[in-house]
Amino acid sequence: MSAGAPRRLGRRPGQSETREQILAAARTLFAEKGYEGATVRGIAREAGVDPALVHHYFDTKERLFIATMRFPADPSKILPQILEGPREEVGRRILREIMRAWADPESRAPVIAMLRSAMTHERAADMMREFISSAILHRVAGSLGVPPLRVEAAASQMIGALIFRHVLRVEPLASISDEELIDLLGPVIQRYIDGP
Amino acid sequence: MSAGAPRRLGRRPGQSETREQILAAARTLFAEKGYEGATVRGIAREAGVDPALVHHYFDTKERLFIATMRFPADPSKILPQILEGPREEVGRRILREIMRAWADPESRAPVIAMLRSAMTHERAADMMREFISSAILHRVAGSLGVPPLRVEAAASQMIGALIFRHVLRVEPLASISDEELIDLLGPVIQRYIDGP
Repeated sequence: MSAGAPRRLGRRPGQSETREQILAAARTLFAEKGYEGATVRGIAREAGVDPALVHHYFDTKERLFIATMRFPADPSKILPQILEGPREEVGRRILREIMRAWADPESRAPVIAMLRSAMTHERAADMMREFISSAILHRVAGSLGVPPLRVEAAASQMIGALIFRHVLRVEPLASISDEELIDLLGPVIQRYIDGP
Repeated sequence: MSAGAPRRLGRRPGQSETREQILAAARTLFAEKGYEGATVRGIAREAGVDPALVHHYFDTKERLFIATMRFPADPSKILPQILEGPREEVGRRILREIMRAWADPESRAPVIAMLRSAMTHERAADMMREFISSAILHRVAGSLGVPPLRVEAAASQMIGALIFRHVLRVEPLASISDEELIDLLGPVIQRYIDGP
């Protein structure tokens, strides 16, 4: 490529940054205003881009919401780490990964925003259910060979603990260390996985 | 009392009904609009009473919120039933009482409204924490002689299950019978109570 070629025809380093910028703005606004309250226009303003660009990258507000709903950690990256190692410690490994993913307020914000939207709008609850079922629960159940019901029970314990620890901040649950929390919940998650 | 005495000086059957009417309206509006979005004026309108009457019964919106936050079942009534009977089945008894209290959409609505508000407003989270700590968690911990941390873990499992079953409606967790749910969660609640 000659030095005189227009930059825009070369590598476009701005593209994925813009997408991330929109996602970050969407997370903020969904968290603040819920699914219905947040608008594409408002998200575009927060991201400092034209609303048409939001539609270009994510099509609809619904798809943008689904994109922001992804767990702070990528399930397809975490899953192999969870499966590797002794089966009798898989409960503790799951908890450790989840604790790591939720340690940072910014990284747990999307999960809390998702829950809040689900509690307000049936449609958002449908979307969250579809997402966690296909992206997480069924995948974990399949990989571990555990009935979905037991994986759901384990996931419900982790979501409940997230709420008590980081939203309600019930003491002493809010202040114990991650290791103490793993000691407390680990045997329970393991029990769900091992079966009755 | 002579037949000619004004009715309003006799028993006043309308008073507690009015209070209940205001509470029901408040539950509906807090559920729909959250703590900040709901106004005393809006609640009064929903209840079909004058806003002054809302202030007369509940003083502030904050106190009204606390009044609506009460669990669908009265902890002081449920607790003796939970404590009565074999210690090794207390987990199942707690679950059975909670399932009974949450079976009806109307009776679980305040708990869900409370959670939603807590996820949106730090002040509401403070209030919910204060309420469940003093009215439920500490009382149960004291009565059972179990460390608060373990009671909180058990409560977080029940709140997580409530969300998965009735808000997200994750299948099959949403459709199993109360008895199947008690079989699934009972040993875990019992484990928290029995200790490590």
